[in-house]
Amino acid sequence: MSRVIDGKAVAATVIDKVKASSADLQAAAGVKPGLAVIIVGDDPASHAYVGAKGRMAKECGFTSVQHTLPADTGQAELMALVATLNEDAAIHGILVQLPLPGHLDSDAVTQAVLPEKDVDGLHVVNAGKIATGDLDSGLLSCTPAGSMVLVREIHGKDLSGLNALVIGRSNLFGKPMALLLLAANATVTIAHSRTRDIAALARNADILVAAVGRPQMVKADWVKPGATIIDVGINRIDAPEKGEGKTRLVGDVAYDECAAVAGAITPVPGGVGPMTIAMLMANTVIAACRAAGRPAPAF
Amino acid sequence: MSRVIDGKAVAATVIDKVKASSADLQAAAGVKPGLAVIIVGDDPASHAYVGAKGRMAKECGFTSVQHTLPADTGQAELMALVATLNEDAAIHGILVQLPLPGHLDSDAVTQAVLPEKDVDGLHVVNAGKIATGDLDSGLLSCTPAGSMVLVREIHGKDLSGLNALVIGRSNLFGKPMALLLLAANATVTIAHSRTRDIAALARNADILVAAVGRPQMVKADWVKPGATIIDVGINRIDAPEKGEGKTRLVGDVAYDECAAVAGAITPVPGGVGPMTIAMLMANTVIAACRAAGRPAPAF
Repeated sequence: MSRVIDGKAVAATVIDKVKASSADLQAAAGVKPGLAVIIVGDDPASHAYVGAKGRMAKECGFTSVQHTLPADTGQAELMALVATLNEDAAIHGILVQLPLPGHLDSDAVTQAVLPEKDVDGLHVVNAGKIATGDLDSGLLSCTPAGSMVLVREIHGKDLSGLNALVIGRSNLFGKPMALLLLAANATVTIAHSRTRDIAALARNADILVAAVGRPQMVKADWVKPGATIIDVGINRIDAPEKGEGKTRLVGDVAYDECAAVAGAITPVPGGVGPMTIAMLMANTVIAACRAAGRPAPAF
Repeated sequence: MSRVIDGKAVAATVIDKVKASSADLQAAAGVKPGLAVIIVGDDPASHAYVGAKGRMAKECGFTSVQHTLPADTGQAELMALVATLNEDAAIHGILVQLPLPGHLDSDAVTQAVLPEKDVDGLHVVNAGKIATGDLDSGLLSCTPAGSMVLVREIHGKDLSGLNALVIGRSNLFGKPMALLLLAANATVTIAHSRTRDIAALARNADILVAAVGRPQMVKADWVKPGATIIDVGINRIDAPEKGEGKTRLVGDVAYDECAAVAGAITPVPGGVGPMTIAMLMANTVIAACRAAGRPAPAF
């Protein structure tokens, strides 16, 4: 039976470290980390996420500012708000909750955030720093950074000699995750919808990372015995066994059967999910430390 | 017997297209592409490279400017020259010949070049654009871009269903090459010095790219029959068969034995080498077209 990687517990240790760093920064330099979140429109799921981020930021001892804009906000107005926050010395992290309403140019907004305040790690400069192996001066995209923390729980910092397979090649996750695994010395393969035989590649993977958004796609016979599985998918499926019209969350991995083969596996929910918000807090305190000219913690 | 991929011939077609684009730009907008090359010190090999680039630039109808600085040039002086060239509207491409003397901070100089004039494709913004799959607004690092042109000669633009292995993970070549192959829909594996069994990975590769700087490391029994081999290595080895003290150039691939198994292979010299300088010219005319607000050619 495999080890279950408890993302909630690991995230809690990250948050503890963020709180300590935040308190240190305030004590030593009189600086309180500031996180500004911009949300446009009234999508309930987005508001739920933003609410959770704000509460966590306060729990970490940050100044938390939320800018809620109406759904018909124009591009110029949104860009002006970003510019104001870029110049605000009390704000160290700026997060624009995605997706934005369809009439807005998300990419232009994302790229307008100063790279040093881009706590989501979406700016091209931060992508370039990951791509060139500069993991110390930029800000890492939260979900891949959090997934790497979970990988380190099992394998430590040096993945030399291990084969990693990342299924999915998104800019948000798959590509930065592959580059982070590579920087940690893993031998990395990136598979995706155009890959011929993902199962065969998976069977060679000591670390298997799934991020495709297809419920329970990874089956037990894809898994190398003893492998570490990081399941980044969060899919809602029907759960008639819970009652009519009920649903439940599952990952991209068929958990029960794969857990029987793997050496370690992240559950869904409670695996990668809690790490994302924890790394957002980590990025914010890192950005605040750098802005104050003080050494930033590493996570 | 495999097809020999003639890099000289392909590079010549690239150069023809550059010449035509350069002439079009001058006719339509009165703009002549300008390439400035900075060289510090008097390393003979570097001067030979720079000389070749200058001659090629003139052949393409560019303004070619060479700044030769003494070996003891200071960082501030070098940065000031880059700043001047950044502001010079007649200069569309700036290339700082590497390596710089040891007392200079190469990375600071590289990152000081405006991304839109970074014809070597070394700026973090250009690395980030490759990493995020934005291949149309940035400038691609020359050797990977040229290698992709050679891959397209064999496989066309869409590498769906093909497995590619890149051996080597440098910022200059291995990582951008892997990302370009991925953007073309290949399933990509990146192997390196910490990889456990490169030979086994290689035997699964439809496209095998070697860039490690180890003479003739790739052997015939690593090669999947019919595979395409792109050999980026240029190593000088002793060639006693040519006479005492003689040397010759070889790649990272044991050419003769691998050519017998492969479907297509680049020779060394005459494979990837000529593509690098051709893509530098391509980047310069692309940068000039963009600066003039005109559509840039694609290569």
